[in-house]
Amino acid sequence: MAKHNAVYAQSGGVTAVINISAYGVISAARESDLIGTLYAGFDGINGMLDERLIDLDAEPEENIQALRHTPGGAFGSARKKLQDLDKDRASFERIIDVFRAHDVRYFFYDGGNDSMDTVAKLSSCAVDLNYPLQVIGIPKTIDNDLPITDNSLGFGSVAKYNMISMMEASLDTESMKRDSTKVFVLECMGRNAGWIAAATGLASRSEEDGPHLILMPEVPLERHNFMDAVDTSVKKFGYCAITVSEGAKDRDGYFLSDRGGQDAFGHVQLGGAGSYVQEFIKHETKLKTHGAVLDYCQRSARHLASKTDVEQALACGAKAIELAKHGHSGVMVTIVREQDHPYRWSLSHTEASNIANMEKTIPSEYIREDGFHITEGFRTYCAPLVEGEDYPPFHNGLPEYRRLRKNLIPQKLPAFKG
Amino acid sequence: MAKHNAVYAQSGGVTAVINISAYGVISAARESDLIGTLYAGFDGINGMLDERLIDLDAEPEENIQALRHTPGGAFGSARKKLQDLDKDRASFERIIDVFRAHDVRYFFYDGGNDSMDTVAKLSSCAVDLNYPLQVIGIPKTIDNDLPITDNSLGFGSVAKYNMISMMEASLDTESMKRDSTKVFVLECMGRNAGWIAAATGLASRSEEDGPHLILMPEVPLERHNFMDAVDTSVKKFGYCAITVSEGAKDRDGYFLSDRGGQDAFGHVQLGGAGSYVQEFIKHETKLKTHGAVLDYCQRSARHLASKTDVEQALACGAKAIELAKHGHSGVMVTIVREQDHPYRWSLSHTEASNIANMEKTIPSEYIREDGFHITEGFRTYCAPLVEGEDYPPFHNGLPEYRRLRKNLIPQKLPAFKG
Repeated sequence: MAKHNAVYAQSGGVTAVINISAYGVISAARESDLIGTLYAGFDGINGMLDERLIDLDAEPEENIQALRHTPGGAFGSARKKLQDLDKDRASFERIIDVFRAHDVRYFFYDGGNDSMDTVAKLSSCAVDLNYPLQVIGIPKTIDNDLPITDNSLGFGSVAKYNMISMMEASLDTESMKRDSTKVFVLECMGRNAGWIAAATGLASRSEEDGPHLILMPEVPLERHNFMDAVDTSVKKFGYCAITVSEGAKDRDGYFLSDRGGQDAFGHVQLGGAGSYVQEFIKHETKLKTHGAVLDYCQRSARHLASKTDVEQALACGAKAIELAKHGHSGVMVTIVREQDHPYRWSLSHTEASNIANMEKTIPSEYIREDGFHITEGFRTYCAPLVEGEDYPPFHNGLPEYRRLRKNLIPQKLPAFKG
Repeated sequence: MAKHNAVYAQSGGVTAVINISAYGVISAARESDLIGTLYAGFDGINGMLDERLIDLDAEPEENIQALRHTPGGAFGSARKKLQDLDKDRASFERIIDVFRAHDVRYFFYDGGNDSMDTVAKLSSCAVDLNYPLQVIGIPKTIDNDLPITDNSLGFGSVAKYNMISMMEASLDTESMKRDSTKVFVLECMGRNAGWIAAATGLASRSEEDGPHLILMPEVPLERHNFMDAVDTSVKKFGYCAITVSEGAKDRDGYFLSDRGGQDAFGHVQLGGAGSYVQEFIKHETKLKTHGAVLDYCQRSARHLASKTDVEQALACGAKAIELAKHGHSGVMVTIVREQDHPYRWSLSHTEASNIANMEKTIPSEYIREDGFHITEGFRTYCAPLVEGEDYPPFHNGLPEYRRLRKNLIPQKLPAFKG
């Protein structure tokens, strides 16, 4: 079987384990009889538009190995989303020109909902142009909002980090409740789906443990009920620990706080839902509040990654190579739950078009009837995803994270004017 | 030697390792021929005023052992500060009455600058009243602003957590810089001293590593110089990661952001310095910014404690018992640096009045000439304090943190009307 080259690229918001998928792709590619040289896109999809392909063979082996424990997107990621084929055909054709110039016939795209749109379109564009390209998606997003797959890569780790952050800050607040803070608010990421916020609910193993209340985008905020619930918690436990999803909405459908901007994918850029909730409680009760916004720290917290997430990130990378070997294109790797206790999972795949631009929100059976917490069903779902620890190696008190050299291969084409 | 009873109490903001000092006191007390029964103050100094003393013998042994890896203040802490002796003599006398009623002759107070004021005053009040009490302070504060002692307990862990959070979020931002966030701002705790913010500087092992800039309260902000430095970093590295101390000040001496409140110790309650810096940069440059405020998560992050901090917290607890045995009172345990490389330390003590209400800020030789980063001298100072990891045990993906039962011993006195 003649070997051809391949490209791996990262897309969208990065995670604590995205480089582990890259490592999975690299390891499997090295062992396969399918792939000649594997390149990586410099800054995601931009790497193809700019013809900037990273020479992975030029990286010292210790840098490749360090992908297994280094957070962020090692090759650079991008928020850039390709438009529809008929509106932006030049970009799709450019990508295929670059692939042709470098004999690239396999493209592994590590991203979320928007990226799977590109996987589907690029795959179909290659067919139109009669270029033998296989495009495979890897299911990455901390938001856990991809349909079909049981969970997405990065979620287990961000869930674990937020869960433990809530557990720790809640113990802290509890110990100071006598004459200091009465309400602690943790703001979590999650645009339209509250999976991350809901996951913090696993920190409450008894009703006195925080979080006492969780505000998810799936449940529009009824202010009166919410203030009653805060009051009940403060009366009963002396304090109240609250998780707020950045995407929490009012009952009129507006985000609790909207910075007013838009990101490059056309989504509202959020922030401040937590501080809005703090201000509201202060206004209503005069109680002393404190709040944390973990922001990027949550999705890059490799020091507290979930072992399940690490193992699945690695396996999904290898699975992408296997799908290529079996001739697939325009598909995304999916994680299938075989069993809850003990947790067993396997990998499969689905058409990327089934994923593209869809958002899976939390089903109602995972949300407690009053809307302010999770059910046992959610615990059963989430528990295995945060199971196990996988610490990075440390040196002099710091994790041994590494930056790649990112040497580029020589360009062959004129610059793209798209 | 006749045994008498003792009380241990926690004061002020809690830390990731404060319960380890408690464990150190408990272990050493059990082995000493000095102490009959060791109680703990329920909610810090309030435990004495209310005559609420926790019966440590009634705690299951696994709860006592779990103090070694549970953050927050296990017995409850308090922000309450006793006033001057002449203004609040009733409170001091009440505490001595309670001690007399329960044959308590040793009091171990785990706190910071304000608490050492209480150690000094209570010790001298006992002399006035002719009650044989020994009061020993344990040097706890994440702020690291106690004079005389080389460092304070809790600092190494909060430093390590912030340092690694900056390292991780900086890698995240770097990978997204092409078409997303250009400036990331991490807000750290630290009221008038920038030790915690400065510690994040250890994350930059080369000039391209974040933090590129650090705003410490010791260096009044010159806005023009700061914006030039942000611009230089964005031009050179494509992004800029900035640490801002919550107590960062403008050159007119005002806090960058002041919530307007006061805590029970009479300090300005801060918050928002980071978001103020973000807004300022956006206003000046239109660059996309993101920011994290770790708040209580930073001082309760037991999952990422420094091993040095853990060991010193344990040793200081035991040292407090030793000082009592040698007849000391009105003193605080101090940590003495014997050598930088390899790090060697020992314990000593000083009069609590040397510590009370003093704040040790960062000396100028630890701050880079332009005011925006640290020197090699600071690295040499800080590196051993964040050295080593000490992970808590985990079960089902969560650390095995425990809540004490906190059974109280029977009261013997009428309620205090102070």
